[in-house]
Amino acid sequence: MALIPLPLERLLRQLGKLPGLGPRSAQRVALSLLQQPVLLADLQRNLADVAAQLGICGCCGNLAFAGGEAPICEICSDPVRNTGVVCVVEGIADIWALERSGVFVGRYHVLGGVVSALNGVGPEDVRIPQLVKRARDEEVQEVILALGASVDGQTTGQIIIDRLASLGVAVSTLAKGMPVGAAVDYLDEGTLSLALAGRQRVA
Amino acid sequence: MALIPLPLERLLRQLGKLPGLGPRSAQRVALSLLQQPVLLADLQRNLADVAAQLGICGCCGNLAFAGGEAPICEICSDPVRNTGVVCVVEGIADIWALERSGVFVGRYHVLGGVVSALNGVGPEDVRIPQLVKRARDEEVQEVILALGASVDGQTTGQIIIDRLASLGVAVSTLAKGMPVGAAVDYLDEGTLSLALAGRQRVA
Repeated sequence: MALIPLPLERLLRQLGKLPGLGPRSAQRVALSLLQQPVLLADLQRNLADVAAQLGICGCCGNLAFAGGEAPICEICSDPVRNTGVVCVVEGIADIWALERSGVFVGRYHVLGGVVSALNGVGPEDVRIPQLVKRARDEEVQEVILALGASVDGQTTGQIIIDRLASLGVAVSTLAKGMPVGAAVDYLDEGTLSLALAGRQRVA
Repeated sequence: MALIPLPLERLLRQLGKLPGLGPRSAQRVALSLLQQPVLLADLQRNLADVAAQLGICGCCGNLAFAGGEAPICEICSDPVRNTGVVCVVEGIADIWALERSGVFVGRYHVLGGVVSALNGVGPEDVRIPQLVKRARDEEVQEVILALGASVDGQTTGQIIIDRLASLGVAVSTLAKGMPVGAAVDYLDEGTLSLALAGRQRVA
């Protein structure tokens, strides 16, 4: 036996590429599973269940129950939610956060990431063409950009604005400023700057 | 659909309990797998291969190819390595480190952790009774404790020393001191203290 047998080496290589796991964590996970066969069997069963029962909504990119050619998620198939407003997010976890807050009643569009020239991620890789097609086909009146307040998030937002320009769709972004509970003297310069620039008249 | 469908919730709960993964990383991993079915299928295949082909050595706790009732690893089944010296380690990854260094030619005993009253881990949970039985049955002359230089590691070592006392087996531990390449002014008090206490006469 080579020091690390081939099937284990393949597993380590794959685990090490999962988000949040480096080579050392991958090693701990793999050995932990090997030494606890019940855990390993549980994981195999959970993965099989997820693979069989869940898929990605062909319309918006959200989670959906697997079904037929292209699954549709419950939000897209809910007529009450067809408000003409589409909220664009980077990932499915952002939908969970927004849905938990209960403040948005339209539909979503999941990019699955942000545009990044450095990492070779183009607009086609983050479902921007599909967004433009939806804006046209579904008579969307407003697109809300709920992307991360990062450089790549902003760049991605600008690309979307440019591509929707000819369609006469209103585009808005989430307000930037002080989060609830923040103390002014704890904020960083960037946030303070945006909070001041976006100040609201009250009297 | 509940916000997080049940099969996904089960997967998230299990992933979050793997070493090195918290709830947030578990979420990133699960969603990443859901959005890349090829990755998910690869992971399922790698886990199945590992589950089918690998097991744990019934003698020492090392990795072994799966086979019959109780697999035996290549080190335990290698007559050249039956030197009467057994090196006790906390985990399989420690065997990899020692084998890579090429400095040890005896056999191993993997505890699978350390004794920890706080976590309810007793000597029976870390294969100490099996070590005592081996020391008796295999005519072991020396047991080397290659455990972590932590409080629990030292406690575990002391328990092993106590339990082997009546067998007339020599017990030794790895030297504590300056690692190769260290500068004295970078060392912490504890390491300096051990390095001084364990000083070697040279003239």
